[in-house]
Amino acid sequence: MIRIAIDCMGGDFGLPVTVPAAVNVAEKYADLHFLLVGRATEVENALQLAKPSRPSQFSIIDAEDVINMDDPIDIVLRHKRKSSMHHALHAVREQRADACVSAGNTGALMAVARFILKTLEGIDRPAIATSLPNQLGKGTTVLDLGANVDCTPEHLLQFAMMGSALVQAVEGIEQPKVGLLNIGHEAIKGNQLVKKTSELLQATSLNFIGNVEGDDIFKGTAHVVVCDGFVGNVLLKSIEGLAKMVSSKLKENFLRSLYSKIAALMAKPVINQFRKDMDNRRYNGAALLGLKGVVFKSHGSADVLAFSFAIERARMAVQSQLLHKTRLGVEAILTSQQEKTIVLHQEDDKNPPN
Amino acid sequence: MIRIAIDCMGGDFGLPVTVPAAVNVAEKYADLHFLLVGRATEVENALQLAKPSRPSQFSIIDAEDVINMDDPIDIVLRHKRKSSMHHALHAVREQRADACVSAGNTGALMAVARFILKTLEGIDRPAIATSLPNQLGKGTTVLDLGANVDCTPEHLLQFAMMGSALVQAVEGIEQPKVGLLNIGHEAIKGNQLVKKTSELLQATSLNFIGNVEGDDIFKGTAHVVVCDGFVGNVLLKSIEGLAKMVSSKLKENFLRSLYSKIAALMAKPVINQFRKDMDNRRYNGAALLGLKGVVFKSHGSADVLAFSFAIERARMAVQSQLLHKTRLGVEAILTSQQEKTIVLHQEDDKNPPN
Repeated sequence: MIRIAIDCMGGDFGLPVTVPAAVNVAEKYADLHFLLVGRATEVENALQLAKPSRPSQFSIIDAEDVINMDDPIDIVLRHKRKSSMHHALHAVREQRADACVSAGNTGALMAVARFILKTLEGIDRPAIATSLPNQLGKGTTVLDLGANVDCTPEHLLQFAMMGSALVQAVEGIEQPKVGLLNIGHEAIKGNQLVKKTSELLQATSLNFIGNVEGDDIFKGTAHVVVCDGFVGNVLLKSIEGLAKMVSSKLKENFLRSLYSKIAALMAKPVINQFRKDMDNRRYNGAALLGLKGVVFKSHGSADVLAFSFAIERARMAVQSQLLHKTRLGVEAILTSQQEKTIVLHQEDDKNPPN
Repeated sequence: MIRIAIDCMGGDFGLPVTVPAAVNVAEKYADLHFLLVGRATEVENALQLAKPSRPSQFSIIDAEDVINMDDPIDIVLRHKRKSSMHHALHAVREQRADACVSAGNTGALMAVARFILKTLEGIDRPAIATSLPNQLGKGTTVLDLGANVDCTPEHLLQFAMMGSALVQAVEGIEQPKVGLLNIGHEAIKGNQLVKKTSELLQATSLNFIGNVEGDDIFKGTAHVVVCDGFVGNVLLKSIEGLAKMVSSKLKENFLRSLYSKIAALMAKPVINQFRKDMDNRRYNGAALLGLKGVVFKSHGSADVLAFSFAIERARMAVQSQLLHKTRLGVEAILTSQQEKTIVLHQEDDKNPPN
């Protein structure tokens, strides 16, 4: 059985989205159990409205506080300890749940998750990873998307390792190709951060394919693309902005004249299929990696379909032992680095300084 | 009269694109004169093929060397001093031309332009700026797009000033709104670089509107968006990659079945109009700012239409006195900073340390 704690109050819409989404996913998988966390009466009502066919798949955990999307992080940490987000994460910590899914404020979720779950041994900073659609019809996992704005090469190395473990676990790819986001493919390109990171990555057992550029994300050149959280967040928001503009311009063009309106009617099934293929709701569900627990973050504006995808990703991560695989990955890298240090020391002993 | 030097051999296609584009633009503006730089016989042949109606609008400057798109910068600087790029830039330096347009390798163009033209007083690093389409149907000018990968807050301040002068000159907007690219609108957001840059920008006479996010570029929130060259380049290539993927997926969907092919025929005029609106060729022509001369860089893969747009942008920049306005902008900022320093020193004199 897989047990998932849902922060039912999080996101722009809260209960009317989170509860029906949980019910949808529960219908698909009989071995799934949900801990619905939020104001108990309200959750109970929402659950009844959603008419689950197997009510025993759900338990309710009462939480009186609600975190708003614009609550400052220090307020959340100090004064909202009884929030649905806190309770859902406590359920993970106390092993009453295998994963937590929340559509709440990203900064708050990261801070509360770090506070309650703590980071894995060997990980300095958790990172946010998501999958973006590529031309191969698959997803490219990109991290960090904004948890860490000032990074060292060591942080990026940890991101690479965690991203690789995520793709291994969730997509079943044995040796995911890892690319380092840069402004050219050549090794001499880039800023100080990526140059040093590249050296570190080459020395690992990761399947590091070298530098990749922004368009490689959409070509599907690598399974995992690593960047610092500033670059990743700018990238994510820029492509969201471009996609919105393109979509609204296309609509505008189809509504311009009588002819174009008729053409729109004709083209509708095709455009709808296209929109479905490109639908970013299918890629909803960013993983918070590097924590002692599985946490997935849904887009705040997610609807029922989108939130269901985030739950599905969390389920897949638990089923494929994401946490265990990430731990192993980190340990392997730590061990190989320690061995290298030992070898270096032995060489130092052989060649003592004059 | 406006005189533009064209690096005819640059870009993926060279003469068959650059010369017809120059002829196209020359037909529109009788007061334009072109210096076509390249292997004289080949340029002469290309010019005859393009059949200009006023041949007196063209002079040819012979240049024996050609810079290839993948020539390393040190080879270009040391061994290709007789290239069409060099000669075109020398024409600007010696005031035989008012601007230079090249589709050659960006790194080489920046290096050669810095070497031949030098940077303006008060500018440490030239930057690359281009205009991206936004939802308002206008362009958002973004810089730096890759000339400078490791930047200080002072560099970003200079970019803001140069970008503001570019928009003033080319688009005729008196007080362009300047935004700082960040991962949130709030002042507390961002990495060290943007936080310090924000402080500097607030102290200038620029119309600084604060932080903007990636999607603001496409919303048209600011006229000028400033970022370091690493972020700018990743951003540019990512949106190019996304646009390509969307366009090829749309095509694929329309070719999937007989029905969708008929729908495609119906929708063709609408889709064509949409493609025209979104056509990135219309936004071709990045400005190399901060040099003692007007230089525009065309996309290497530009066709005749795209290269014509780059020439038009260069013409507009000359006509609207970009260089003069940039100089004034830099001087104004330098003066205000000196005044601040003087005030600070005077305050120090009033409050001597104990």
